Amino acid sequence: MVVDNSSAFRMDPEVPLVVPEINADAIRGHQGILANPNCSTIILVMALAPLHAAAGLERVIVSTYQAASGAGQRAMDELVDSTRAHLDGVPFDREVLPHSLTFNLFPHVDVFQESGYTKEEDKMLFETRKIMGLPELAVEATCVRVPVLRCHCESVTVELARPLTPEQAHSHLGEFPGVTVEDDPSRAVFPQPVDVTGKDDVYVGRVRESRAFERGLTFWVVGDQLLKGAALNAVQIVELL
Amino acid sequence: MVVDNSSAFRMDPEVPLVVPEINADAIRGHQGILANPNCSTIILVMALAPLHAAAGLERVIVSTYQAASGAGQRAMDELVDSTRAHLDGVPFDREVLPHSLTFNLFPHVDVFQESGYTKEEDKMLFETRKIMGLPELAVEATCVRVPVLRCHCESVTVELARPLTPEQAHSHLGEFPGVTVEDDPSRAVFPQPVDVTGKDDVYVGRVRESRAFERGLTFWVVGDQLLKGAALNAVQIVELL
Repeated sequence: MVVDNSSAFRMDPEVPLVVPEINADAIRGHQGILANPNCSTIILVMALAPLHAAAGLERVIVSTYQAASGAGQRAMDELVDSTRAHLDGVPFDREVLPHSLTFNLFPHVDVFQESGYTKEEDKMLFETRKIMGLPELAVEATCVRVPVLRCHCESVTVELARPLTPEQAHSHLGEFPGVTVEDDPSRAVFPQPVDVTGKDDVYVGRVRESRAFERGLTFWVVGDQLLKGAALNAVQIVELL
Repeated sequence: MVVDNSSAFRMDPEVPLVVPEINADAIRGHQGILANPNCSTIILVMALAPLHAAAGLERVIVSTYQAASGAGQRAMDELVDSTRAHLDGVPFDREVLPHSLTFNLFPHVDVFQESGYTKEEDKMLFETRKIMGLPELAVEATCVRVPVLRCHCESVTVELARPLTPEQAHSHLGEFPGVTVEDDPSRAVFPQPVDVTGKDDVYVGRVRESRAFERGLTFWVVGDQLLKGAALNAVQIVELL
């Protein structure tokens, strides 16, 4: 059994895409390759799974705020070095990222497809469907690279089949393994990249009634792309085997 | 006649909230105070107005990426100074922003309300309704402060009453005064904060068919908060008078 991280295997319908908290049973009886999902997708589905179990997902709209870490250590170094060069007023030649992240951001993660969506945005649609076993689920994603070193954030609106209050959502999210609820806006408590860096869990906050859907919620999710978004999830798959 | 920028006047139903390209006729016959809208709202409605005229808005879901400039010159200075201190490994005492923007971001712009939404998110709902004359329009907003110096970006999904292709949207957006379309992802062309800084227009790119709605579009809007988002709009109101 091999746990593979490459996009080709992730898109292959024969290869299970595993998030141990959600679809561990996909491994049962399977021989050969297993795939570790895309990092933005793992972080999203960790919050979607308990909400779907409680109230049924009908539709998902997500905008991401993805750290340099998602593009690797060299991208993190380039963010730091280019920012220092900018502050010192010296020229800098970019080699890793497709555009400047120096006090800048861009809606371009992975390559553009014919549809106008990027491959990253496609993964958030197709991998979410595959992991959650919901082949018809609508997942509208916009993926944006931001000048943050580590941790991906996601602003998420969901339409639900059945009503669910923010308080009920807190309780379902809080009971789900691997998710921590950090949500007390009156005391300015909600997850931020600097605080979630180095943490294994996916953090959820700012859960509130949707203004777009009669039955829906809007919330904010943050996960360390280098941990639950990548290495930790792979380790958890290996532990399952 | 006075053009006022304060939130109290913006929320007052008796005070017209004016974006000259959209509702210049709100001024006609009005005596006394006029209000300049919230900066994130101006940038949003510049893109919504031509789409509404062409195909009827049913629902809007928006996540913002707001620069330090929205919190004033002192916030811009604090972003630069705190980043330099971080890179030099020296301590920094924050005085202006509510949380660190040093390679960090946070979903907290203006104060939190009882509903769990911030006042900024409320403004994007109520001011958009007022400017566009659509008192029932659903506008779901999540407002996020990002480590960018100037220009607010917005990831927007709209449901429309009538079908509209991305090509048709390009043509309606491009003909609207104050909007520039910059949209050629195959050549990595879409608006970015560093490029829109100092520009009067609101820039729209990444227009594509929505995956959440049968009739809908998803797109990316960028505007210089210090220009169309504030001073320029006020100057344009005064010119109208």
